[in-house]
Amino acid sequence: MPDRWRGRRILITGGLGFLGSSLAHDLTRRGAQVEIVDSRDPAASDVRSRLRGLPREVPVHRFDLRDSERTTDAVRDQEVVYCLAGQVSHVASLHCPVADLEGNCLATLTVLEACRRENPRVRIVYASTRQVYGRVSKIPVTEEAAVRPVDVNGIHKRAAEEYLRLYAEQFGLRSASLRLTNTYGPRMDVRNGDRGFAGVLIGRALRGEPLTIYGCGTQVRDFNYVGDVVAALRQAADLGDLSGGVWNLGDPRPCTVREFVDTRGQVLPISIRQAPFPGDLRKIEIGDYAGDYTKFHNATGWSPEVTLNEGLRQTVAYFREHRAELLPEREEQPLLRGADRESA
Amino acid sequence: MPDRWRGRRILITGGLGFLGSSLAHDLTRRGAQVEIVDSRDPAASDVRSRLRGLPREVPVHRFDLRDSERTTDAVRDQEVVYCLAGQVSHVASLHCPVADLEGNCLATLTVLEACRRENPRVRIVYASTRQVYGRVSKIPVTEEAAVRPVDVNGIHKRAAEEYLRLYAEQFGLRSASLRLTNTYGPRMDVRNGDRGFAGVLIGRALRGEPLTIYGCGTQVRDFNYVGDVVAALRQAADLGDLSGGVWNLGDPRPCTVREFVDTRGQVLPISIRQAPFPGDLRKIEIGDYAGDYTKFHNATGWSPEVTLNEGLRQTVAYFREHRAELLPEREEQPLLRGADRESA
Repeated sequence: MPDRWRGRRILITGGLGFLGSSLAHDLTRRGAQVEIVDSRDPAASDVRSRLRGLPREVPVHRFDLRDSERTTDAVRDQEVVYCLAGQVSHVASLHCPVADLEGNCLATLTVLEACRRENPRVRIVYASTRQVYGRVSKIPVTEEAAVRPVDVNGIHKRAAEEYLRLYAEQFGLRSASLRLTNTYGPRMDVRNGDRGFAGVLIGRALRGEPLTIYGCGTQVRDFNYVGDVVAALRQAADLGDLSGGVWNLGDPRPCTVREFVDTRGQVLPISIRQAPFPGDLRKIEIGDYAGDYTKFHNATGWSPEVTLNEGLRQTVAYFREHRAELLPEREEQPLLRGADRESA
Repeated sequence: MPDRWRGRRILITGGLGFLGSSLAHDLTRRGAQVEIVDSRDPAASDVRSRLRGLPREVPVHRFDLRDSERTTDAVRDQEVVYCLAGQVSHVASLHCPVADLEGNCLATLTVLEACRRENPRVRIVYASTRQVYGRVSKIPVTEEAAVRPVDVNGIHKRAAEEYLRLYAEQFGLRSASLRLTNTYGPRMDVRNGDRGFAGVLIGRALRGEPLTIYGCGTQVRDFNYVGDVVAALRQAADLGDLSGGVWNLGDPRPCTVREFVDTRGQVLPISIRQAPFPGDLRKIEIGDYAGDYTKFHNATGWSPEVTLNEGLRQTVAYFREHRAELLPEREEQPLLRGADRESA
């Protein structure tokens, strides 16, 4: 198909992760010249299966974004830089705040400095998070709502958004920050217990393990299928307003955690237990959340298209196909069974 | 005099600087057991003259706050930790944002982590800045106003305030952030051109050099004499509300830059030139600013007591006394004469 992405030069930081690799697949299929920066081992099984099926070879530059020289080389001559690298665990940010500072603030600053010096005409799209809002007083939440994160990760993601705004104002660097909500889909991390509720749920169901829901599961959340988020990332690069602003994503049909689990249960049964919140998770529990994405919709026409039921079917199908690589062997299961390793 | 500070154990980070050394003098005179952490050379002439006249020896631990082990040792058993260390130059933060990140975010995080682990009952007072507000829509500004910094320094100082709020909420660590405005007085840095307008003005007047005012000098500012700011720092440590909040300082008599210069002229004449803003300074010029300190006044009774005229007299008297150490020799003067080294 003829596509406006054909031939465009695109850099994706964190391109071996869930979202980054999904974007790489999409843009490569559209004919873009994609390159990836990531510090992960490209030979790891989850990474290999994420890249499988790419229509052509995508160069992967393996280094840490704290390396300003290599970052400068990587951003040179790119038309769009997607900043998707970063520490994502909320709980870990409270245990290792300095690692979170480096993975989010320092990494983003290094990319922006490199672009300012070597590629000031680039367009930058930054993957931020609804976590910057913290506990909100009403839903759905617009971009005007107060920002009051409940963890160090939220503070650092907010600072990174502010870098983008400032570099737009002070140096004319074009950018947009998308505040992502719960994203799920093929290629997501279902092995770590600290990468969000959806991944834990799907991983446990596929392994035939019971799921523990903390609290009563009545918190509202919005879930976006990764294909819809990839579409949003594409459209963000061509926004008319690239002045460093923030843009919510979201879903027109927010649901409770319990409803998500039940929908999931229709696709692949799972047994449920309930338990009180453990301390670490209680600290960062934000209550109800749903993002108002009217601003982004009005600017781009974007709306989520994949229903939860359909998205979960596609997700399960992907993980069934990649089961051998992505799920632990039977004999490893007991390691993951303890209630303290679960998350909801 | 009997004083509630007698015997209290106090740590001051950045204690060899303008504000830190002024606080060290005050608390030591009141009988507190003060210790200082600073990475500066204690043998430097400006540092030596700042410490002169202390009623007793104050231990100075010379290290960088990125050293988490030594920071942990330093905070142990302290009753109050004053976080006054940090990169302060707004212009430099746009040229070297990573140094600003380390000097402000990383340093503050290291102190908070050390306190959380080793001294969770400590009280922490953080010196923040009005720079976090950026360009404000009306003055005087209350703590409810939007935060929209115009430089990287403001983003990092804001992130540091947020750490304090978060560590109070999540770990019960007691703290307060004071948003300082333009502070002037004895022991200030009058040699660097990037440490604020008041220091530049006083330094140039003492050296008999003309001062260039950029723009027309009609911007409103509030100036606090360092003795009043030290009183505020003292009172902040004993606030009833140490839940990590932010508190403005300010002055009941804000004035224009031109009025400040004229008051200064009554104490020590100086010749004035006007010039357009150079690019670097135009970028971070914030227009009018005056802080509303009602919240802090209501909680502590604090108000500035020293008038601009009196404060400037005391400042000039100090620098005349320390002239030999603090002002460059005659033959060095031409190095400082270029219009591009001036600041207003």
